[in-house]
Amino acid sequence: MDLALLYSGGKDSSLAALLLDTFYDVTLVTAHFGVTDDWEHARDAALELGYAFETLELDGDVAHDAAEQMVEDGYPRNGIQRVHEHALEAVCQLDFDAIADGTRRDDRVPSISRAQAQSIEDRHGVDYLSPLSGFGRGAVDRLVDSHLRVETGPSEEIPKADYEGELRALIAEEHGAEAVAEVFPEHVQSYVHGRRE
Amino acid sequence: MDLALLYSGGKDSSLAALLLDTFYDVTLVTAHFGVTDDWEHARDAALELGYAFETLELDGDVAHDAAEQMVEDGYPRNGIQRVHEHALEAVCQLDFDAIADGTRRDDRVPSISRAQAQSIEDRHGVDYLSPLSGFGRGAVDRLVDSHLRVETGPSEEIPKADYEGELRALIAEEHGAEAVAEVFPEHVQSYVHGRRE
Repeated sequence: MDLALLYSGGKDSSLAALLLDTFYDVTLVTAHFGVTDDWEHARDAALELGYAFETLELDGDVAHDAAEQMVEDGYPRNGIQRVHEHALEAVCQLDFDAIADGTRRDDRVPSISRAQAQSIEDRHGVDYLSPLSGFGRGAVDRLVDSHLRVETGPSEEIPKADYEGELRALIAEEHGAEAVAEVFPEHVQSYVHGRRE
Repeated sequence: MDLALLYSGGKDSSLAALLLDTFYDVTLVTAHFGVTDDWEHARDAALELGYAFETLELDGDVAHDAAEQMVEDGYPRNGIQRVHEHALEAVCQLDFDAIADGTRRDDRVPSISRAQAQSIEDRHGVDYLSPLSGFGRGAVDRLVDSHLRVETGPSEEIPKADYEGELRALIAEEHGAEAVAEVFPEHVQSYVHGRRE
């Protein structure tokens, strides 16, 4: 069965790929808005892991609305959630038997409820899987340490292709660098460089 | 890393084992109350899958309390939940790095909340995993069809070692066969006979 996994090049979505490839033919799909070339980092990480890779261009209006929402809120949560829900709907339009993401049990956002999962499956006739939603932070960290080679650091220094990079760029363009710093408190990101031998 | 998976011989816990053995040395652990020999069915299923197998004897008082609760309620949900929570606490006493169960996204019971999962991990210093909690019924059924050889039928005809068998026996002993029929409406069970080639 063919599965499309929403992929950022980070440790969670990379670990999700390793788990799913027991059962599925996994293609890593990086959704982006055409704002930056950050998706290339995800492509490189995907190649280092040895998976098929595709990009998926999302609706720019959604990015703009999400960026405005974040600035208004003063925090990124609702904007990220909105973009992730849009990305899941978009990846359903591709021709896969199943779609998946790397959300973990302890993630506050993005987070897809049981009802949302069922709705995606019913409307699109696909299986939606979140293979890490039964794994806590400690288990994920231990599995990442033993299976992946990872680079970590502050968000702005780590090459990555999650939605954050493009939303930062959009907010910087419209509202300046101070607005970005206000919305996104500094936190540690990860970027995957292949498997451990 | 060594992992103990609570195991009934059914399709969900068998599929959970296949998923987890990508990352862990899996031992299948069947919890029982010493009321029946049903655990032998789980042992046979475990051998057919090629996993290490252990039994774990639970506290008989919990079984009696759960059986009484079921009869009082007229349905099994709360009793099953109580026994499952007790089994998770008990399996934490064994010497494993991680424990797991086969609960799915769409299961109403047993169901372990995020807060309960965190509490188990904090109190016992283990990782608790529910690898199928990110998989819906459709995905589980499709994966089972392609990876496991399964026998299905009404609960009372399928050899199995979930808590239900022993709780049925306890209720029959104390309250008679009619009480069993009242608490457990007829439903289809599954029993695994190894992997598909």
